Amino acid sequence: MQKIEHIGIAVKDLEKSESLFSLLLNTPVYKREEVENQQVITSFLRNGPNKIELIQGTNEDSVISKFVEKKGEGIHHIALAVDDIKSEMIRLQRAGFQLLNEEPTIGADNKWVCFLHPKSCNGVLIELCQERK
Amino acid sequence: MQKIEHIGIAVKDLEKSESLFSLLLNTPVYKREEVENQQVITSFLRNGPNKIELIQGTNEDSVISKFVEKKGEGIHHIALAVDDIKSEMIRLQRAGFQLLNEEPTIGADNKWVCFLHPKSCNGVLIELCQERK
Repeated sequence: MQKIEHIGIAVKDLEKSESLFSLLLNTPVYKREEVENQQVITSFLRNGPNKIELIQGTNEDSVISKFVEKKGEGIHHIALAVDDIKSEMIRLQRAGFQLLNEEPTIGADNKWVCFLHPKSCNGVLIELCQERK
Repeated sequence: MQKIEHIGIAVKDLEKSESLFSLLLNTPVYKREEVENQQVITSFLRNGPNKIELIQGTNEDSVISKFVEKKGEGIHHIALAVDDIKSEMIRLQRAGFQLLNEEPTIGADNKWVCFLHPKSCNGVLIELCQERK
């Protein structure tokens, strides 16, 4: 495990939240990206070695729209940067963590990603991510 | 703003969560610390430049015990490392963020800390923290 790659924050109104987090972190949004297979649009801000990812659902069926509907805006997941996502997936599955996908999938920001079920992580949704080459 | 200093995770059973997050992050807990003025006991794990702080209330009146009672275990706050907490507090207050304490207070891990109200941060409880000299 290298570092906290980013914290994903579910929001209702991406533009408003971009302004808010730019003010908070004193830095501009440097990238906006739609991830069609997840029905979300994302914005990224840097904070030293880490990032904040703001995430808005692009329609009502999006996991993020449902999260915001149910729990309100707030932290959605923690993404941990790993060197080798496949070996980490094997290690964590053997250790009893429940993987939400059997194979790494393509996520935002040019990453291979795999999520761990929050029930196996004290209520925290964990994303493993590895830079795609 | 330097980096995400740590993510604070509210837990019910510190020992169990220490084992779980040690497995997840593949690293041991390096410090356990009681913060009496906040009625909590905390454990820290490193993840590269960042930390995970596990937090358990030491009695029923603790903010953390109430959080877990109401919302279940999960992410409690994001702590952002700053160079000069007082000037950041002034900057953020002027920008419209609501501070939860007027002056920096002493937090865990030898830090000056100040919290921002989640209502002014898209539902996210933000902690500013500065290393005490």
